[in-house]
Amino acid sequence: MSTHPASTTSTPVTVIGLGMMGTALAHAFLSQGHPTTVWNRSPGKTEPLTAQGATGADTVGRAVSAGPLVVVCLSNAEAVHQVLEPEAENLKGRVLVNLTSSTPEEARTTAAWAQRHGIDYLDGAIMAIPPLVGQPQALIFYGGSSGAYSAHEQTLRALGGATTYLGEDTGLPSIYDSALLGILWSTVAGNIHALALVGTEGVTAEAFLPYATAWLNHVAVPYLPRLAQEVDRKEYATEISTLNVNREAIAHLVSASRSQGVSPELLLPVQALIERRVARGHGSDSLSSLIEELRNPSA
Amino acid sequence: MSTHPASTTSTPVTVIGLGMMGTALAHAFLSQGHPTTVWNRSPGKTEPLTAQGATGADTVGRAVSAGPLVVVCLSNAEAVHQVLEPEAENLKGRVLVNLTSSTPEEARTTAAWAQRHGIDYLDGAIMAIPPLVGQPQALIFYGGSSGAYSAHEQTLRALGGATTYLGEDTGLPSIYDSALLGILWSTVAGNIHALALVGTEGVTAEAFLPYATAWLNHVAVPYLPRLAQEVDRKEYATEISTLNVNREAIAHLVSASRSQGVSPELLLPVQALIERRVARGHGSDSLSSLIEELRNPSA
Repeated sequence: MSTHPASTTSTPVTVIGLGMMGTALAHAFLSQGHPTTVWNRSPGKTEPLTAQGATGADTVGRAVSAGPLVVVCLSNAEAVHQVLEPEAENLKGRVLVNLTSSTPEEARTTAAWAQRHGIDYLDGAIMAIPPLVGQPQALIFYGGSSGAYSAHEQTLRALGGATTYLGEDTGLPSIYDSALLGILWSTVAGNIHALALVGTEGVTAEAFLPYATAWLNHVAVPYLPRLAQEVDRKEYATEISTLNVNREAIAHLVSASRSQGVSPELLLPVQALIERRVARGHGSDSLSSLIEELRNPSA
Repeated sequence: MSTHPASTTSTPVTVIGLGMMGTALAHAFLSQGHPTTVWNRSPGKTEPLTAQGATGADTVGRAVSAGPLVVVCLSNAEAVHQVLEPEAENLKGRVLVNLTSSTPEEARTTAAWAQRHGIDYLDGAIMAIPPLVGQPQALIFYGGSSGAYSAHEQTLRALGGATTYLGEDTGLPSIYDSALLGILWSTVAGNIHALALVGTEGVTAEAFLPYATAWLNHVAVPYLPRLAQEVDRKEYATEISTLNVNREAIAHLVSASRSQGVSPELLLPVQALIERRVARGHGSDSLSSLIEELRNPSA
């Protein structure tokens, strides 16, 4: 089949799976002028999109046949295989972009299946909520065929301005996804605990906001390069902020939280991890050494 | 007694307690040209400072008598009372700045004691490690007598350029301290978990660093104003990222972590908190609503 040149903005695209995210993807393609064919297992989901100019396909087969670039966004890896396996022959020679949430192993299994059938494959992870899809700041990670990525980068950018190719490894987008979401939850959890704490003294979240923001910008984020260096070198000795010092300080925080009537539960596993590492004789190491405990969960 | 005008940089200062932090404080005063008198319970600690021009006092009494501004940095509130109570009369009319780690209640107790004895009192919290004390970016919070703060702001700025007065309430510095430290530990914990996770796929901390940094700068920090608004208004309904959605996503992260051989322990309390809030019928609320669970730990 013919593929459109990568530079045109009118590459026809197919979107399979029209949940909240799939619908947002189709909408973003339409907004950028791409002829867009959509399909969903249950038919009601296509109408809002066909009203905006999308073509609703009766069958997955017709949807796949509509163009060179097939984007799939389903509930999980199993659904992807159920829907696409019967279409393997039809997908041959096209580019399949899988934006379904998955594990690295699932992504590699799908990639291996695609390779066996001559399908060019990209796995992706969308680091944005549906309303942000298509916006300049929306981050989407891709891994897999570099040929497929460079051929369709321009088109994929319709889904998010911060589109990022991580390399040939199809397992990377999902692990970057999990890692960043963990950072978000942890950071939000720390802020929620902080607001509960200052709230006991009548400080509003609005009043505390500039301090939390400055603290993250000027203390937490600037600490990351040192953390990264220590972790990569496995050199954790420090004279600045040892685990012994942190152990005392976090015990103070936990007891201060309790005495203010705030549950310390979000900080307890950090405390436990510090205690464990100190008990193993690493009290003179820095916080970054805690990674060794996470890497050996059974140890 | 006479007090020097606030604008001079030569206000004599006294530093009581020469642990790592107290020594850093005295050093910062000396660096800015302040006549500095130091005292420590065990005598060996004064020598490095007297070698730099500090005056070593034989007794607490002589240290207190040396000037209008007495800075105390001891191991805990109890030590502060043991050392200073015999000097109450001597401290009268001077400004006492207590930079010892404390709880809001301890700070207020010390403030009440100071008031009874006619001592102008400021409680402070140092948000910097000793090597950063005296640097422009070093943040120190103060609460208490506004007259004392404005009289000595210039002098106190020798200890940290980001000196911040929070108001008359002596309980605030310690609660801001605890809240910000909790944010730091949570954020660092999230990043350590992330590095362990991407590390299982051969991604170095250095390679992941730009993504973690951009994610914090462009996603986590920009979320804080919304979080603050929702918390202050207690309006948690959302159509964007509900607890139901987060519940599924964090379950995915926990299982992905386990299947990669990484302990999910740092994220488990966030998951448990989300589960608890959803079980109570708040699945359509946003993450910010989790604060309600922390505020009612016994509920």
